This record gives sequence, C-alpha cells and structure tokens, in this order.
Amino acid sequence: MSGDLSFFFYPKSVAVFGSFKEGAIAYEILRNIVEGGFDGKIIPVNPKGGTVEVAERSFEIHEKLDEPVDAAIIAVPAKIVPSLIDEIGPLIKGAVVISAGFSEVGNDALEQELVEAARKHGVRLIGPNCAGIFGVHGKFFGSFEVRVKPGGLALISQSGAFGGAALAMGNDEGIGFSAFVSYGNASDLNESDFLEYFADDENTRAIALYIEGVKDGMRFMKALRYATSKKPVIILKAGKSTSGAKAAASHTGSLAGSYEIYRAAFKQAGAIEVEEMEEVFDAAKAFEMYPKAGKRVAVITNSGGPGVLATDKLERLGLEIARLDEGTVEALKSFLPPQCSVKNPIDLIADADYERYKRTVEAVCRDGNVDSILVICVPPIFIPSEDIARAVVEADCGKPIVANFMAGELVKGGVELLENAGMKNFPTPERAARALFWLSRR
Amino acid sequence: MSGDLSFFFYPKSVAVFGSFKEGAIAYEILRNIVEGGFDGKIIPVNPKGGTVEVAERSFEIHEKLDEPVDAAIIAVPAKIVPSLIDEIGPLIKGAVVISAGFSEVGNDALEQELVEAARKHGVRLIGPNCAGIFGVHGKFFGSFEVRVKPGGLALISQSGAFGGAALAMGNDEGIGFSAFVSYGNASDLNESDFLEYFADDENTRAIALYIEGVKDGMRFMKALRYATSKKPVIILKAGKSTSGAKAAASHTGSLAGSYEIYRAAFKQAGAIEVEEMEEVFDAAKAFEMYPKAGKRVAVITNSGGPGVLATDKLERLGLEIARLDEGTVEALKSFLPPQCSVKNPIDLIADADYERYKRTVEAVCRDGNVDSILVICVPPIFIPSEDIARAVVEADCGKPIVANFMAGELVKGGVELLENAGMKNFPTPERAARALFWLSRR
Repeated sequence: MSGDLSFFFYPKSVAVFGSFKEGAIAYEILRNIVEGGFDGKIIPVNPKGGTVEVAERSFEIHEKLDEPVDAAIIAVPAKIVPSLIDEIGPLIKGAVVISAGFSEVGNDALEQELVEAARKHGVRLIGPNCAGIFGVHGKFFGSFEVRVKPGGLALISQSGAFGGAALAMGNDEGIGFSAFVSYGNASDLNESDFLEYFADDENTRAIALYIEGVKDGMRFMKALRYATSKKPVIILKAGKSTSGAKAAASHTGSLAGSYEIYRAAFKQAGAIEVEEMEEVFDAAKAFEMYPKAGKRVAVITNSGGPGVLATDKLERLGLEIARLDEGTVEALKSFLPPQCSVKNPIDLIADADYERYKRTVEAVCRDGNVDSILVICVPPIFIPSEDIARAVVEADCGKPIVANFMAGELVKGGVELLENAGMKNFPTPERAARALFWLSRR
Repeated sequence: MSGDLSFFFYPKSVAVFGSFKEGAIAYEILRNIVEGGFDGKIIPVNPKGGTVEVAERSFEIHEKLDEPVDAAIIAVPAKIVPSLIDEIGPLIKGAVVISAGFSEVGNDALEQELVEAARKHGVRLIGPNCAGIFGVHGKFFGSFEVRVKPGGLALISQSGAFGGAALAMGNDEGIGFSAFVSYGNASDLNESDFLEYFADDENTRAIALYIEGVKDGMRFMKALRYATSKKPVIILKAGKSTSGAKAAASHTGSLAGSYEIYRAAFKQAGAIEVEEMEEVFDAAKAFEMYPKAGKRVAVITNSGGPGVLATDKLERLGLEIARLDEGTVEALKSFLPPQCSVKNPIDLIADADYERYKRTVEAVCRDGNVDSILVICVPPIFIPSEDIARAVVEADCGKPIVANFMAGELVKGGVELLENAGMKNFPTPERAARALFWLSRR
C-alpha cells in the first residue's frame, strides 16, 4: 500500500510555484484553484515577489515558502526543480511537478536528482511532466485543465492531453468526477498507487485508467485486483497495435509489451477493458449510476426503429431481451392502447405521455424476469421531452434504468431534467445498450 | 427507373392539408415550410377556411384546392385520405401522406383504396404513416422534423422517428443535408425509388439509408447497384438479431429475413454497411467531404496519447500507418524541434503552433507513400484551437484530411472554423480513424 494520499486530493493548504503573469502555467493553475472555490490557504511563490490578481482577489506573491503546506504545485524550469524540492522539502507533504524536461527528453539524471531530493525529505511526488491533479470534492483544482462537476469518477491518466480532453468532454457527457490525476513520468507515485488510493476514497464510485504501459507488472496486478474488489475499474490501454506500441514507446517511454498479456491481466483482475475513448465515457456514466446489473434487459420505447437498434445491439453484446412474465403482459395490456406492442421491446408508440411511460416502467420493473431497463424517447413535436424524463425519474423502480433520449436540441430539456436527478443520458440506442453491457460485466 | 421525383424535392408550389391550429401537424409543417424560406407558392387547405399566421406572415386557408400544385402534404384523418386524393388528383403530381391508421394498424383495405385513387390520377405517393420530406436545396421543408443545414447527404428512412432523431443529431454533428425522406408504409414509392432518384440528384454526394426490410429484393439490388455506381450509399440495417427481427416485423411489418442475406447483398452491391447509428454520422461526414481515400494514413498530432489511440484504431481497422519517405523525414527534421517525433504518428508536441502544423501537413501531403492525413489537436491553454484549425484549412494539400480536435468547449472555436471551411470534425481519435476506414471502402 502506498499510504494515504489525501494531502494531494483534499489538501488544507497549497503553494504554487512559477510565473504569475496572465497566461503562464502557474497563473492558470492559481486561477483554477481560486475560481474552483478552494477554501484552504493558497500561497503563490516566486522569488520576484509582488502581487497577483485572480478572480477579483489579490494575493501577495511570497518570495519563498516560509510555512508548512500540504501540497506544492511546481511549474518552474526543470533544472531548478530538484534544488527547490530540497529547499521546501521540510515544509511540504507532496509535490506535483508540472515542469517538463526530465526523462521524457532524455534527462534521466535530472529526474534522479529530483527523486532523491524528495526522498530525503519524505516528500511524495506526482510527475514530473504532468498536467496536475483535481480533488473535486475538496474543491481543489490543481491543474490548468478545465474544471469539472463533482461526481463519482476518478480519472487516472498517463497522458496529460488525453486526461485534459477527457475532462472537457466529460463535462459535455454529463459525467461527474471525484478526482483527476495526470502522473506524467511517474518518477515516484504511479498508476498502482492511485488505484489503491481511489479504491478506498469514499467519494469515488468508479475509476477510469488510461495507460500506455506499466513498469512493475506484479505491483500493478496487485493494485488492480485490490481496486476491482472495491469498485469498477475501467481501463483504456493505448499501444495495442504494432505501430501504436512503437508510438507509445516514443511518447511515454512505455514498453507497451505484448497487448495480449495486458488483456489477459485486465481480465484476470476483473477490470472493465474498453476499446476506445468514447466507451470510457459510456462505462463511466453507467458505473457512476449503478455498481452493476444483470443480463436480462427490458426495452421501453416510443419509436419502433430506435427500439429495434437497441435490441440488435443488446443481443450482439450477449445480453438477453428479457422474456416478460405473463402477469406483466396482462398488466400492460390493461392500460396500453391496442396499437402498442407489449412484447419486449415494448413500443408505447409516438403519443406516449407521462402516465404511459411511468406505468410501463413500474410494471416492467416489478417483473422478476427483468434485471434492468433501457428507456428510449424520441419526442414527437406534441409531447415535451421533459414530460417523459419526469416519468422515468418519478417511476417507482429500484432496478437500473439507462436512458436514451435523442434528437439533439429537441431533448435538451429532458436530458437536463434526467441529469439533475442523477440519471445520465446516452446519445444513441447502441451506446445505451453498451452501458448495460458494461454493468453486466461486474 | 422510377422517373423524376423532383416535384417532391424541388417543388414550385405546394398545398398542405390538415388542421392549422398551433401545435397541429399540418400547422407545424406549414411553419417549417414558411420558416425554411420556401419561395414557391404555399396553399394551406381546410374545409373550414379562415386564416393562419405563421412566422409573421398571414395565409388564407383555402376551403378546397382549386389550382394545380406540384406536391400535396396531407395530414388529415386516415379514413378521408383516399377520397381527398381522388378529389385533388387531377391537380397534383405527388402526395406525401403523413396520416397514420393504414396497413400499419391492419387497415390494409384503406391503404389499397388510397393507392388506387392515386394510380387513377397518375399521382405518386410517399407514405402513408410517414414523417414527410425535405428538399433542402429547394428550401422545401415538408415535414414537422427539425430543419437542417444544406449539404450533400440524402437521408432515406423507413422509420420516421429514426429519421427525425438523425436529422436533429446531424445538426449537432455538423452534417449538411441535400434531402430527407421518411417513406412510412411505402404504399407506392419505396427505398428503391429514392435510391435511384438521389443517385442522379446533383446536390447529393452521399446517400444514407435506414431500413428494417425490403419487399422486393431483386428491385432493391438493382437500385442499390445503380446508386453505388454513382455515389457512396451508407446503410444501417435494423432487425439484425433474432429479437430485433421480431420487433421489426411488428414495427414496420418488415419480414427482416435472414440478416446474412442482406449483409451479402449490401457487400455485393458495393454499399457501405455500418453497424450502429453513430457510424452513420461518421460515414456521412466523411463522404460529404471526399468520395474516397487510399489505405495509407499519416497521423499528425500535438499530443502523444490521442495519436497512439488513432494509430491503434487505424491498424485494427486494417488501414496502414504510412511509412514516410526518407525525403519527408528529412524535410520534417529541418524545421521541427528535436523533441518532436518525425515517425508516423508524427508528434508535434504541445507547443505546436500554426506554422508547425501547416508545414507538417504540407510536407506529409507531398509524400507519395501517404494517401490521407488524420490531424489531431488537443489545444494547450496557451495556443487557441482556431490557430491550428486555420493551419489545417490553409495548408496546401489536395489529399483527404480528417480532423479530430478535442476538448469540449475548448475547441469550439477551432471546430467552427473547420466547419465553415467545409471540414468536419470527429470527436474522438477512433471516430476519425473510422471515417478514414469508410473512405477506404469505396
């Protein structure tokens, strides 16, 4: 175990080192910390001193750090980082080194110096050459990346750019985050340490991991097994192909190794391996809502075509189109118009309103043959998507429900209503089906 | 051949039948036609007469149609549709019957009556039980579905709801449309007629087809072969699985038949079959830009991780990571900083600006080993995505370029700039790779 890293993700005080000119990295990080509402102590440090204005607050820039803080964020030139760590080591618990110019460009000796300086003082390191960290529930946005909404996903990324893009896109996808860490060169803390830490973090419901390669396979397997015993771990492995593995080697210096070995290891450890970036979002959304779901799915729709597409995908993924109990079929017949199809997929036809959706969800939910429900809505012009969203949210049902409201602008209101109630929307029938597939893998 | 259907998609005059109360189907269609800027004659018809105000214009409602028009859009109760067609038949060339309540609910006799009335007067029918049509370049939006931007995609959909959702989502995806047709029960004109028509429509660069099943396989194969000889045809077949096929049978009454037979037929005819809804968008975007592309791809990126993901996907899809010519490598070395990777995928690293992107695209484009280029941009905070977008747009390159700018809000400006220059953006590296895959299939 790597011990408690909460001084990084829930710090009480933080110092930022670098240039505080507008647009500079340290300035942007300071701005993110302040605008993000961090309510601990914030100390900007630069030997030139002065003041810096951020988000209508004015901070004195300290010429040096002269009091203890939990974490230091460092964005100064690479060559002075080791001596800085040696100087402030006695005052800090951990340092996030944003600065690049270490082993990733061949400066192995400089990185070794950095690690030794940190070790001397018992300081833990994230980076160097990283994009920083977020502890979202501690309102701590220690990175220049775009801030995100609080939620259950901890994102661990070997690639800073992937992490940054995934955070920004996660906002659009309606994902809530507990934490983010870009660990760059992994000179001290690495993916295994973060897996173990987030496994025990009470605000984290699922972990997503982007890796190109790991250095210590045994350690990684142990950490991964520990994490998956506690919560879902979604992994996107890059460098799976021959050319991709070569590119990864020159990118993060990762010996990507045989993908088959990784693949078997992920499976053995019980992780959820996804094939592409978009699937990270789908799986993350699913696991932010539910820990798992069975294989027998009921599809409820107001439009035939999308219902058929969902059914095709579910079957292709190895899920089952639940065979409804006779009692459920009778119950549905008792209140649905005769044009509706009471076989699964259940087609409520275009004029389905709040009542029709709500009663159907509740009747199907009570069916012992049904493990989970996929609700599709393509709103006709005469029924607002908000009505259907409300029906789904207000239906009395304790089983996992995955929603696919679609038609761009036309479902914006309904999707918002779903999200405010903690229910994520999936943009196509197939992506909703895939969400249920990931849930069935736990 | 089904003859010229341009009176439907480029009408000079149109009559709309139904209720013109706000919110009623006929009212909404009238509104769409008026707001869409149709500059031909528009005649609302309802026996009650009166006037209707739409988009700050006032229309007299005719009690009956008393002059010839190209097309009639009909949204009156099903049982009076056949007699209406018989009455107005001498005055119209075609009718789009929105009204439901025909063979899809078992009223086969009523549908037969409708068909006979139309045949008697030589009137061509779209529908009944359909969502209407768009002729986008004729500024004719004869449907209640959301209006779309003009472009090269003709969307033919057996499912009205699928069509409506795809149009709305197409707007978000940056797709431009030439036409849309929801053909419902296909009582007269069907998918084969529209394939043949759009194959010859000069504003259509690609055709997308959603089908559950076809009634006349021989006719369909002939039409499909004709269309694919002229332009790319993207097909999404629903009802591929056992449960999906059963659902399709109750939805559109399609005998979905063995999917394997469809699949072989699509392949034999040279169509591009996609597996899910999202891929329709990706393929449509690709083919709106380019008729085809070779298999040898160069990847240019400013961020390692996403470059590796693109490379993995390209290789998995059977494309080749182009081996750059020695001359190209030397040229790249002459102006790129030493930290950049000049091997494909080419990593320009985070501080890549306009010049670095533009010169790289141009150098790679001149390479005889390269068929197409995938450009990735995850903008760092200090370089606006617009700069990189401008570099891609302004680079002197005649080969297909597919773009993946990503980071949600942060790339909005860059994506807009790309789209205004006719270049679509793909939201993930893998979807951009898939776009190139579809292009390589022609």
